[in-house]
Amino acid sequence: MRIIKLDESSKKNILNDLLKRSPNNYDNFADSVNAILANVKENGDKALFQYTKDFDKADINASNIKVTEEEIKEAYDRLENPELVQVIRKSLKNIKEYHEKQKQYSWFDSKPDGSILGQKVTPLSRVGVYVPGGKAAYPSSVLMNVIPAKVAGVEQIVMVTPPGKDGKVNPNTLVAANEAGVDVIYKVGGAQAIAALAYGTESIAKVDKIVGPGNIYVALAKKAVFGYVSIDSVAGPSEILVLADETANPRYVAADLLSQAEHDELASAILVTTSEELANKVSEYVDMFVSKLKRKEILQKSLDNYGYILVTDTMQAAIDTANDIASEHLEIVTKNPFDTMTRIKNAGAIFLGENSSEPLGDYFAGPNHVLPTNGTAKFFSPLSVDDFIKKSSIISYSREALEPLSEDIQKFAKAEGLTAHANSIRVRFEEDDDIKE
Amino acid sequence: MRIIKLDESSKKNILNDLLKRSPNNYDNFADSVNAILANVKENGDKALFQYTKDFDKADINASNIKVTEEEIKEAYDRLENPELVQVIRKSLKNIKEYHEKQKQYSWFDSKPDGSILGQKVTPLSRVGVYVPGGKAAYPSSVLMNVIPAKVAGVEQIVMVTPPGKDGKVNPNTLVAANEAGVDVIYKVGGAQAIAALAYGTESIAKVDKIVGPGNIYVALAKKAVFGYVSIDSVAGPSEILVLADETANPRYVAADLLSQAEHDELASAILVTTSEELANKVSEYVDMFVSKLKRKEILQKSLDNYGYILVTDTMQAAIDTANDIASEHLEIVTKNPFDTMTRIKNAGAIFLGENSSEPLGDYFAGPNHVLPTNGTAKFFSPLSVDDFIKKSSIISYSREALEPLSEDIQKFAKAEGLTAHANSIRVRFEEDDDIKE
Repeated sequence: MRIIKLDESSKKNILNDLLKRSPNNYDNFADSVNAILANVKENGDKALFQYTKDFDKADINASNIKVTEEEIKEAYDRLENPELVQVIRKSLKNIKEYHEKQKQYSWFDSKPDGSILGQKVTPLSRVGVYVPGGKAAYPSSVLMNVIPAKVAGVEQIVMVTPPGKDGKVNPNTLVAANEAGVDVIYKVGGAQAIAALAYGTESIAKVDKIVGPGNIYVALAKKAVFGYVSIDSVAGPSEILVLADETANPRYVAADLLSQAEHDELASAILVTTSEELANKVSEYVDMFVSKLKRKEILQKSLDNYGYILVTDTMQAAIDTANDIASEHLEIVTKNPFDTMTRIKNAGAIFLGENSSEPLGDYFAGPNHVLPTNGTAKFFSPLSVDDFIKKSSIISYSREALEPLSEDIQKFAKAEGLTAHANSIRVRFEEDDDIKE
Repeated sequence: MRIIKLDESSKKNILNDLLKRSPNNYDNFADSVNAILANVKENGDKALFQYTKDFDKADINASNIKVTEEEIKEAYDRLENPELVQVIRKSLKNIKEYHEKQKQYSWFDSKPDGSILGQKVTPLSRVGVYVPGGKAAYPSSVLMNVIPAKVAGVEQIVMVTPPGKDGKVNPNTLVAANEAGVDVIYKVGGAQAIAALAYGTESIAKVDKIVGPGNIYVALAKKAVFGYVSIDSVAGPSEILVLADETANPRYVAADLLSQAEHDELASAILVTTSEELANKVSEYVDMFVSKLKRKEILQKSLDNYGYILVTDTMQAAIDTANDIASEHLEIVTKNPFDTMTRIKNAGAIFLGENSSEPLGDYFAGPNHVLPTNGTAKFFSPLSVDDFIKKSSIISYSREALEPLSEDIQKFAKAEGLTAHANSIRVRFEEDDDIKE
């Protein structure tokens, strides 16, 4: 891995480079995505089935688009590794337990003048979860997208996922969906699936929100339908940043960097450290592991593209760099990781200490692995129960509570030229409707 | 106002009609908005100043784009109604008090095996607030957008607002901004202001999130930069739905309907009631008030376009209709409004009882008046402190806590074909790096 002594100018270049991976830079796909969306909006199922024939080479129609109970039962038998069921169940338990703690509750505050203010929390009614097909069909991702919706109390959770040529869905996906409690699964993928969820078709009813990762077509389609429905944040390529001082174990750090680099060629693995010795040792371990791991080609490409070992003079400079990059995953391996953590502003998930390796969070610890990528941890949060609720303000005033505000509300309304607003207060305290404006 | 006896088919038509007002249906402006965004991204200040010259007819440059302290002082003297300052201060106090209750806190949960899971809450660093110029420069809106950011602890709150031809900003806006605690104000508006906030220019640094209402150009620009930065939900025209039975006061209901209808010709005012008698009386009062109010032309147009009195057979049918419409403002004026409220799923703000008139919420009660419009209350929430924070997951495991999960994590990773993930766990429990895959 390349080792760079960090200064302001190299930092700026690296930051710009990393942002090039953003799905926001692929607007050249927008026309074909918009055409698909418009066609499904206009022609419903007919368009949906045609795209599935064209793109997935699968014959899907109104009678087989919905995964049957038999197909789900069969999926358990089709599992390559039957042990996966038990592993999924253990992981599911932890994920559920963590997300239960995120639940928010309705509240109200009353005053003795008869006024009540509050906030009502209501789960979304219908949510659509997109699950990619092929090599990116991760059962862990199914759990991470479905469980927060389930914990929030969503009435119906709908899954869409592209079928193989044989019209079947990946058994790992079906088993994970069934274990997590998905209500209905449709065999359709790509931008056309997003269109179906956003607008509704004869077979698929419109949802309130669409979540889940997908390729560039899916990402752009989700962005395009934002406003018709809600969406989770637009997912970019995976990232890990390890913030370490001389106390870190270089073998662990190297292995952890590679755990994200293996995702794809756009994935980014970065070590920021105050220790040149650590930098050199990690680089050696990385080379050794790459030579032995199955996905060595992807690993080498993603390291060449977006892998860096950055050496800084001070821990504060290292922390500033971590905050500037705002990585999806941040491992802190310093003498006192909790102390370092207090100075972190921007990160999707923060892993503290040498035993908190990133894959623990991907699969088992409980927190969500759907995290803000590509610098968006500056303003986005991990997927959570919050994503599957909405709030309504509650206002209940008595006449006694309204009266002392009556004049001021009317003044404010009139200052904004909104005299019908003022009138709505006035009528409650004046009998006469001879309005003077 | 037209009175309609509601059935499934008339309901469907009305729902479709209301959705036509969506800012999502104005994609024909998208090309000019995208051109503005691209130009500002490429040419920074130069493009910004040129657009301000073209669109606002104002001469703005690097030396006068920032509102000075003198200009703010002067604004207090320029106020048309000097009483507004006191009114703003009283309102501000209530808004702050309500939003303080929305604050969320970091939490953690530890187990005696040395594992800690948690969630860290961090305010956003820099937020941009858009404030329209001209007739839509509402000081109340400034308070509602700025105070939640302030309560959240945002480090820097930046405001952008278009200048008049004389290069000056509406004094109401400046006074409200100063009272609410805005840190810096730039004289620039339209899609070009959104571009500056999203990408940064020489004069204006990039922000993390953009909030605030604007015209169709501003709305489309915000949607286009979503992902580079976060945005609040895309605002549509205002709405009120009054859900009433025979106990409601028709004079109050009529006045409240008009308080939203006066906003603009796309605003929607709807009464849903089980009482034909109330329907008729409200219609009469509406006609009487319209004839006397200043904004009678807008009122009549918005009532003709999107005003309805809908009569249903049962209260359940009325409630279902309210949930289908998912109105921005919902007034419940029934025998037991709290009981009715429990059955409401979708509404931005819920006003209970005959003294909770909608303008009370617009100006004074405390809850935010930036609310989801156009059916989006099905999945969006009022603007709140939540909009100005982000969360990071916290994972800290001891060796003792990781060890029992070690095998399962590796199994899960291998089932997904992610062997470098498995390796990152393995290295912690095996000395030997002779990886068998």
